[in-house]
Amino acid sequence: MESLKIRPQVQEIIDEFLNEQKPILNGVSPAASQLVDFAREFLVGGKRLRAAFCYWGYKAAGGDSEKEILHAASALEFLQGCALVHDDVMDASDTRRGKPAIHKRFENLHNDQSFAGSKELFGVGGAVLLGDLMLSWADQMLLNSGFEFQALKRGKDLYDLMRTELMAGQYLDLYNQAKRGGDVAESFNVIRFKSAKYSIERPLQLGGKLATDDENLNKVLSDFGLPLGEAFQLRDDLLGVFGDPEITGKPAGDDLREGKRTVLIELAFENANPAESKLLEDLFGKADLTQHEVDNLREVLQATGAQNRVEELIEQLFQRSNEALSESNVTTEAKNALAELAIAATSRRL
Amino acid sequence: MESLKIRPQVQEIIDEFLNEQKPILNGVSPAASQLVDFAREFLVGGKRLRAAFCYWGYKAAGGDSEKEILHAASALEFLQGCALVHDDVMDASDTRRGKPAIHKRFENLHNDQSFAGSKELFGVGGAVLLGDLMLSWADQMLLNSGFEFQALKRGKDLYDLMRTELMAGQYLDLYNQAKRGGDVAESFNVIRFKSAKYSIERPLQLGGKLATDDENLNKVLSDFGLPLGEAFQLRDDLLGVFGDPEITGKPAGDDLREGKRTVLIELAFENANPAESKLLEDLFGKADLTQHEVDNLREVLQATGAQNRVEELIEQLFQRSNEALSESNVTTEAKNALAELAIAATSRRL
Repeated sequence: MESLKIRPQVQEIIDEFLNEQKPILNGVSPAASQLVDFAREFLVGGKRLRAAFCYWGYKAAGGDSEKEILHAASALEFLQGCALVHDDVMDASDTRRGKPAIHKRFENLHNDQSFAGSKELFGVGGAVLLGDLMLSWADQMLLNSGFEFQALKRGKDLYDLMRTELMAGQYLDLYNQAKRGGDVAESFNVIRFKSAKYSIERPLQLGGKLATDDENLNKVLSDFGLPLGEAFQLRDDLLGVFGDPEITGKPAGDDLREGKRTVLIELAFENANPAESKLLEDLFGKADLTQHEVDNLREVLQATGAQNRVEELIEQLFQRSNEALSESNVTTEAKNALAELAIAATSRRL
Repeated sequence: MESLKIRPQVQEIIDEFLNEQKPILNGVSPAASQLVDFAREFLVGGKRLRAAFCYWGYKAAGGDSEKEILHAASALEFLQGCALVHDDVMDASDTRRGKPAIHKRFENLHNDQSFAGSKELFGVGGAVLLGDLMLSWADQMLLNSGFEFQALKRGKDLYDLMRTELMAGQYLDLYNQAKRGGDVAESFNVIRFKSAKYSIERPLQLGGKLATDDENLNKVLSDFGLPLGEAFQLRDDLLGVFGDPEITGKPAGDDLREGKRTVLIELAFENANPAESKLLEDLFGKADLTQHEVDNLREVLQATGAQNRVEELIEQLFQRSNEALSESNVTTEAKNALAELAIAATSRRL
């Protein structure tokens, strides 16, 4: 896919960076260099969606410093690494992409070495620190991307806003889940900040800012990126409930066990008849759901029309995003790549 | 104290920064703006030791951009905020400076609101995110301090190294504790990276780098700062065992219950006779130590000569640090302030 052609270069940049960090960690202690190895494993083979949006946002703005934008875009993969590792700690999720989550990796290390004390606490500690390192390495890589100061300053301001929105959005997610959900509007707010802005709109704009101070371009990228980001997260929520575990890398029904208050779920609560409401109340968020109970919940999500409604929303948001792109005057190359990315981000399988 | 005269300005800069962040978080959700309030509470009234060392490192190098250095120095308080909040999660420490730790604050919020799900997990989640925010805000503040690009670039490179060393040092601390300690040399490595460099040497050098590219000054600040930092942490370890809870803000004996493998403890293990060894093996790291058992452990730390040896080490390191300062040609004003800070950092009460 042309739009994801940067994947091998992003991988190379991440590897080189980690190679440079390794002796520093090793200098503290060979034990600490384990952190680099875990980071490397964790960062292998991602979709590089955020990096790609950043890259094409830059291209859309007419930027042509290839080496620099590849480094800046790769920085987002470290930020995403932090978000995922810390997210798994906060959700106590034991798997990620079909493999043990990082805190589980540290727990296993604790087990294998017959260490003293609580292995759970050691697992959390290792994962918190690895996430902190990746969060730190992200801005380090961005600031060392080689752009001149004015471009970096514009980019870093946007990046700072994105980070704050991300953490606030994640907190809102925890909060809404704890208060047993809110309404459809609130659940939209979560996906806007935790996901849509962070995954698509802001990476595009970061690329744009690194190329130009044109505020018009910044707006175009938002008009295209924000609805697309919302559609992307709605698709992700559908996959979290109905997706094939082989493709999602998560056990079927995990989002239902976790009690994630998605737009899909809020719509079901809003439109449920008394029998459906009771079933939702009883089963949604139950940690030990059986496969049969997962199926029952899925049926309610269909019967209430929530699933169809989310599919409709995805379609509408996708169209709105597409129109913004068509009407814009970004370069043809970027337009084609962004249109391709838009399909990939909202299709049923990515 | 002249050397800590910047404390009110640091407080003001932190407050202003948080005032600017509040509407951003509020825009995500009023619930999320709680994060700013917790950060504000947490960051009130610290000793500002790292900020002071950064400020005086800058002055030692002849820097005279007051507003800029105060902002850069204040950034370190956010980094320290992250380190403490995440540290308390990793150690499952419930108090900090005599008040509930941040994860406990979030647990209490969960309780007060009769939220659903695990309050412990909500507490950990809130604290991880607040730490991530403070870690992000630290480099944001540093990069917006107003220095010109070359100075910022030099400073940020040093800052990046410091962050990586800090996280690696903290991991080594967890690791050594889990493997039931190592030896005196290893425990020195932990205090070097987790504390001495991070608390004193690197903040001094950050200030220096923001003023000058003179490598000689950078070395002077290390020759003064590293032994001083080690002495500082050794004092802290003594206070953790023998200190007055009124002053340390931690329950007496908490470090002993936690099983912190400090230089003090490693020295005791190394020099214990069979009876003392048995007592150490039996009681050290026991989560429910009684006051009587704490007293027994304290006696062993005295009888083995470990306490005296640590006092001697503090004295030697302090002298070495002092000599490096005396022999240097930094400005008299800075020399006086640094000498004052050195005493404060290693005296029995700070």
